[in-house]
Amino acid sequence: MDKVINYLKDNYYEYIEELKEYIKIPSISTSAENKGDMINCANFVKNKLEAAGITGTKIYETEGHPIVYGEWLGAPGKPTVLIYGHYDVQPVDPIELWDSPPFEADIRDNKIYARGANDNKGQNFVHIKSVEAFFKTEGKLPVNVKFLIEGEEEIGSPNLEKFLATQKELLKCDAVLISDTSMYGPGIPTVSYGLRGLAFMEVYVTGPNRDLHSGSFGGAVANPINELARIISKLVDENGVIQIPGFYDDVTEMTELELENIKRLNFNDAEFAEELKVKTLHGEEGYSTLQRLWARPTLDCNGIVGGYTAEGAKTVLPSKASAKISMRLVPDQTPEKIAELFTAYINKIAPEYIKVEVKALHGGKPVVIPLESKAMKAASDAVAKAFGRETVYTREGGSIPIVVEFVNHLNAPAILMGLGLDTDDIHSPNEHFSLESFHQGMFASAYFLEEFAK
Amino acid sequence: MDKVINYLKDNYYEYIEELKEYIKIPSISTSAENKGDMINCANFVKNKLEAAGITGTKIYETEGHPIVYGEWLGAPGKPTVLIYGHYDVQPVDPIELWDSPPFEADIRDNKIYARGANDNKGQNFVHIKSVEAFFKTEGKLPVNVKFLIEGEEEIGSPNLEKFLATQKELLKCDAVLISDTSMYGPGIPTVSYGLRGLAFMEVYVTGPNRDLHSGSFGGAVANPINELARIISKLVDENGVIQIPGFYDDVTEMTELELENIKRLNFNDAEFAEELKVKTLHGEEGYSTLQRLWARPTLDCNGIVGGYTAEGAKTVLPSKASAKISMRLVPDQTPEKIAELFTAYINKIAPEYIKVEVKALHGGKPVVIPLESKAMKAASDAVAKAFGRETVYTREGGSIPIVVEFVNHLNAPAILMGLGLDTDDIHSPNEHFSLESFHQGMFASAYFLEEFAK
Repeated sequence: MDKVINYLKDNYYEYIEELKEYIKIPSISTSAENKGDMINCANFVKNKLEAAGITGTKIYETEGHPIVYGEWLGAPGKPTVLIYGHYDVQPVDPIELWDSPPFEADIRDNKIYARGANDNKGQNFVHIKSVEAFFKTEGKLPVNVKFLIEGEEEIGSPNLEKFLATQKELLKCDAVLISDTSMYGPGIPTVSYGLRGLAFMEVYVTGPNRDLHSGSFGGAVANPINELARIISKLVDENGVIQIPGFYDDVTEMTELELENIKRLNFNDAEFAEELKVKTLHGEEGYSTLQRLWARPTLDCNGIVGGYTAEGAKTVLPSKASAKISMRLVPDQTPEKIAELFTAYINKIAPEYIKVEVKALHGGKPVVIPLESKAMKAASDAVAKAFGRETVYTREGGSIPIVVEFVNHLNAPAILMGLGLDTDDIHSPNEHFSLESFHQGMFASAYFLEEFAK
Repeated sequence: MDKVINYLKDNYYEYIEELKEYIKIPSISTSAENKGDMINCANFVKNKLEAAGITGTKIYETEGHPIVYGEWLGAPGKPTVLIYGHYDVQPVDPIELWDSPPFEADIRDNKIYARGANDNKGQNFVHIKSVEAFFKTEGKLPVNVKFLIEGEEEIGSPNLEKFLATQKELLKCDAVLISDTSMYGPGIPTVSYGLRGLAFMEVYVTGPNRDLHSGSFGGAVANPINELARIISKLVDENGVIQIPGFYDDVTEMTELELENIKRLNFNDAEFAEELKVKTLHGEEGYSTLQRLWARPTLDCNGIVGGYTAEGAKTVLPSKASAKISMRLVPDQTPEKIAELFTAYINKIAPEYIKVEVKALHGGKPVVIPLESKAMKAASDAVAKAFGRETVYTREGGSIPIVVEFVNHLNAPAILMGLGLDTDDIHSPNEHFSLESFHQGMFASAYFLEEFAK
């Protein structure tokens, strides 16, 4: 094992350069104009898998972006791990807030700054390289390994579920290993056992059939922005409680054990507020910050637009206004039911003098994974070794909708071995990834393969 | 007089071509990048005044856009009319909704479609051409005429008031004639005697110091869009009543005579709603549509933006959100006091967990002009002659903030002889101006000069 770790140490700078090449491909899955980049990026991943020593590689076309698959099954009698990641990234707006171009992978302060540096290129590259180190030093892997790197995670993995459902034999495994979550803090080895789900909605309000002069018409006809604001204001009350009837019906509260774990983590609200530069935190009354983040559903506007938004004044009474609104879900809520409740509530509160349309974009189920499994133990031991301290168990506020599909279709535990930090600005300008995490993450991946073989 | 009218008829097509040239200059006063176009447009107007026969022309520089002045004082013993207009136009967004390019003056259906075709290039060009017709046929004008065509009306005329205050001698007159309002309906000769004022505000809400992942942070920190929506929802209640304390204190109700006039006009709510394609009108409870438009103050969001607004989904919890909000005012409200009340109320209702900033952009005072004056009578007779039916008296929902400054500084009545229609989409995509109004407007202008000389 020392040889593997030393090999990873020796190739540290080389691997950073390779990661930079990966990052340079602007694989924005939501953007139609980056379709070609998505194909390039899938090929890049396939080539890197092959270079690492993975033999059975293949690109699977989907109705959307391609899925990259690879496998090495040369360890009969040993367990099989399926390593999942995604090569697609979030859009880059607002572009003007980036300190370096989002696809140029600038290194500052021992961190690599770029869209995708962390989420998820940096985190999935770790596993490709730990596998490479085994092949280069031992000529083989301690367990059987399958790779599944998709291109639609940031848009809700619309085609992966069908792939899982129809390729059960191909993807058969004893555990799914995913590095796409956060560590509890810098250098703190972390295994996560829960993820929130998601229901992403759009609300469109239409008033008059065209933009009007707010002087000539103002006061006589409803204003779509004012009305959209009124609708949004009725979604969550001032105590952070969501007002949609039935919204909380399927919410499972945390167990006593989980609440004790939270107490032990001793989360510091004041530091958190200071880091975000807010005077005070704000969330659902009666719950601690970690409960709010891990085990309570939310409703956030992700975007709103209407009327004149450029510099200066324009006295327009706009025809339209719209908002993107998403809800994070917790077990046992489902995105389908929540989308229905949301839509029904909006239609109920919308006044008759405007037209309101609600559209459900994508959704994902929440999940909580049992802590008792061989793979979970291997992951916990592996990160403890790599980072040199005791492992912490967390749940995550974010969503990886596909995790629950892995659990359901493959009947294997999903192991969330995150290497990023909540402060790494993923999905924001200046996304970054600590090079130390990148480095120790490769060790953790190698240790996992070793531990899982035992 | 027949010679003048015939001359205008003979030159009808020629004048349309000249108006097209005027329109082609993209004189958007709010846009820094059109600064050069503003200067070109001012020179265009000056040249047209000189070509018409106006002798004392001059361009006055201001801290913003230039003012074009011209005069002909060759009618001693006769009254002097100051003709006011503006050569600046509104921005063109949303550009994609225009059926023809906004500065190309496309003629369809006997209407000229372009930004500024109506507001105000088409309407001020009418007066330049009626003056030209007098000079070409009679060699002189029946009254003394001064022209004042400014370039900052669409941004609240920030430099014109100082000009009025310091150039009282230059601008001395017996009446100010302005064609920048609407006719009550197609072909209905109209004189307006009131305008609403304006207070234009911006509200900025800041939450966390950067855009966050709505999964990793959602539920623990306030969302600026949700909070901005809550603030906006508290500005006007569901009955259309503005909730800012003290907002209505200085509002003067309409007189009995005015209410009778409204009754006679027999405004059709159903037709109005049908024209705007709304199921039902909506406004302040207890007032008719014309009261709401002419004599009641309003509060409209003119723009809102925050977070991710492009195609698809992005699960961001944004750092900032902002709105442009304007209020139309009626006598005796003042923009200064209303801006103060607005700001105080927003600061009062803003929760402590977000940062809120309020900025007052520009404002304008409301005005009501007495109906008993020689100039008002001349205007009423002139439009009745030009359009061939009885003149209607209206107030306007829009604002021409400078009108009240004319009244105050020059001590002369302002005569609002509008030639546009409320349905002409001024400030919107596909702004247009009826060529018939352009034509009959020139007659009306000529008749006014004749009537005012009597």
